[in-house]
Amino acid sequence: MKDFIFSNTTKVYFGKDHLQHLGEEVKQFGQKVLLVYGGGSIKRIGLYDKVMAELNKAGLTVYELPGVEPNPHHTTVNKGAALCKAEGIEVILAVGGGSTIDASKAMAATAKYDGDDCWDLVTGKGASNGHLPIVTVLTLAATGSEMDIGGVISNVELNEKQPLFGPNLRPNVSFLNPVNTYSVSAYQTASGSVDIMSHIFDVAYFSNFELMDMLLRVQEAVLSTVVKYAPIALAKPDDYEARANLMWASSWALNGFLYDGNMFAQPAICHNIEHELSAFYDITHGHGLAIVTPRWLRYILSEKTAPRIKRFGVNIMGIDEKLPLMEGASAAIDALEKLFFETLGLPSKLSDLGIDDKNFAVMAKKACGPEGQLNGMTLLKPEDIEEILKMCL
Amino acid sequence: MKDFIFSNTTKVYFGKDHLQHLGEEVKQFGQKVLLVYGGGSIKRIGLYDKVMAELNKAGLTVYELPGVEPNPHHTTVNKGAALCKAEGIEVILAVGGGSTIDASKAMAATAKYDGDDCWDLVTGKGASNGHLPIVTVLTLAATGSEMDIGGVISNVELNEKQPLFGPNLRPNVSFLNPVNTYSVSAYQTASGSVDIMSHIFDVAYFSNFELMDMLLRVQEAVLSTVVKYAPIALAKPDDYEARANLMWASSWALNGFLYDGNMFAQPAICHNIEHELSAFYDITHGHGLAIVTPRWLRYILSEKTAPRIKRFGVNIMGIDEKLPLMEGASAAIDALEKLFFETLGLPSKLSDLGIDDKNFAVMAKKACGPEGQLNGMTLLKPEDIEEILKMCL
Repeated sequence: MKDFIFSNTTKVYFGKDHLQHLGEEVKQFGQKVLLVYGGGSIKRIGLYDKVMAELNKAGLTVYELPGVEPNPHHTTVNKGAALCKAEGIEVILAVGGGSTIDASKAMAATAKYDGDDCWDLVTGKGASNGHLPIVTVLTLAATGSEMDIGGVISNVELNEKQPLFGPNLRPNVSFLNPVNTYSVSAYQTASGSVDIMSHIFDVAYFSNFELMDMLLRVQEAVLSTVVKYAPIALAKPDDYEARANLMWASSWALNGFLYDGNMFAQPAICHNIEHELSAFYDITHGHGLAIVTPRWLRYILSEKTAPRIKRFGVNIMGIDEKLPLMEGASAAIDALEKLFFETLGLPSKLSDLGIDDKNFAVMAKKACGPEGQLNGMTLLKPEDIEEILKMCL
Repeated sequence: MKDFIFSNTTKVYFGKDHLQHLGEEVKQFGQKVLLVYGGGSIKRIGLYDKVMAELNKAGLTVYELPGVEPNPHHTTVNKGAALCKAEGIEVILAVGGGSTIDASKAMAATAKYDGDDCWDLVTGKGASNGHLPIVTVLTLAATGSEMDIGGVISNVELNEKQPLFGPNLRPNVSFLNPVNTYSVSAYQTASGSVDIMSHIFDVAYFSNFELMDMLLRVQEAVLSTVVKYAPIALAKPDDYEARANLMWASSWALNGFLYDGNMFAQPAICHNIEHELSAFYDITHGHGLAIVTPRWLRYILSEKTAPRIKRFGVNIMGIDEKLPLMEGASAAIDALEKLFFETLGLPSKLSDLGIDDKNFAVMAKKACGPEGQLNGMTLLKPEDIEEILKMCL
């Protein structure tokens, strides 16, 4: 068990009736606020008007940056950061899902960077001198960006999708109202639910290091919550209990608690592979994870990896404990596929998304990063990644 | 499900090799530090010397307040607060268990109070103007004071033991090294483990309100961790994994996460009863809870309360799910008694502690507080509390 530091300073307003505190929370950081949002769904559900009313009531000066893409582009981030610099903006308010919040985090850092390209910060070519404070109003249970220290930015010119991390990128305040996710489509609800599970899988549950037992149990508590409530949210999109459980699960899956000192102890395998898919084909992150994850588990299944995979099956997916080890682990993977592709209804193959194998070799190499391999629950080389991608076709 | 605000700002250093950061963490709050500790066990285990070395290395001016009692007295708090005022102390460093930390919190508040008696703050007669920053080095897995907003103070003149709450009383930084709990006696390890479980029982698990399902699952994850590791720590006091799991369980049992908006939604029944026992007889808090809790559950057992009690038995104590409702719930209480009184070896009766029924009527009335009743999983009047206390004889 490794030593670790736990610190999560995000203040979360969770529930239906908290938005009246938005003005005071934003205002504590300054007078000029940049409102960042995506494709306009927040206008359709009336959230934009409610947010603007609160900001106006607090007498704040509001600038706007709409149009953040689902896999947010570095050019959009640069546009927002330039606006922050030009107008002397003091605080960023992200209203949306993980992409909007991720883009806002990158803007917050780039606004305090001497250069003008956020990609410098992603690649480590440059470093920011601090960051603007960040407040969020979440509209999608998925990425955990509302309480975590990272964001993922896409460079469409380079076909690259890379994370940007830093303790200062944790939102100062986040407003989580499950009602704001009622209008999330079945497809995005399913994809988001997979993303939540994948954070736990990828960072810790399917890993090669010893985790504190309590944290493994809490991971299973959160995983089983998602497995229970994702189908309920699909069947009844305005089920408050389901939406609330998914929303809070999303935050805790990646806010630091579940991993003790192991947050960066191994590469997040499926995320690394999926980021290549999104970078090349701009697909929905959670859907990509749903396609990759069971194939990855199938590929790495061995006597060595089977105990944890079977444990997952028994404790989360209702697999019979009495099954022999390898059979039980295999049944766990079957059950996960059934959950993703039948219960949650996500198309199961990359070919369903019009993706063929032509870029697999390049993607596999890129997924392995500068070290040329991914050393997680098992050691994977580019040829292994390529095989896993082929299993996804 | 209620709306809630989650915010926990304590920075935790968890593990074996963090103490070298103590100086810098204390120093950020000021130059003059009051070192608060208890009966001297920190000297026996060498922790006092290590702490002093770090404080000296950082060039801090150290004042000392030793001798904090296991149920800390308000007079001790007042002494510490007076010292803070007289010397212009800027930060309090608590090295010890929950009692030392609780006392330090009350000192931190009283040091900023115009009056000189912390009991004014406990009773609400006065209010403090802020608080001194608090750093802790924990030596006992039990109360959760290292990450929570409360403390409990005893007034031995009045035979009263009362909590003091406030968001400012949350420690700024806590150092949690499981090795510092290796020398904790079997009795204190057992009592501390019961305290951890009781926080979850009393504040949320055995309650009359609807909790978010995910949190119920996480509560069970933490409870099952304690049930597993408390016996291991008794059998092998220097088992790092066991001590680490108990220590982190103690922090999370009461740091706000597990209860969403329900922290003060109902009285903490067994804590209220036990506080009377400690106030009158100065017994160990966790031991008092161990004696009271199963009797309370037995007293309130009905068709209405049985489902949650049985669920506890099935999910935590290994009770057969197929048992009929009332039988399963009863078996769960049996299993809890067996855990506390056989596995953990705690004497099971108040009479074992030399306590008879002579003060029960007064204690029962006091336990019910100004409302004259405790409205939790069931409604209890003083006569009910008296009956429960008699069951403990």
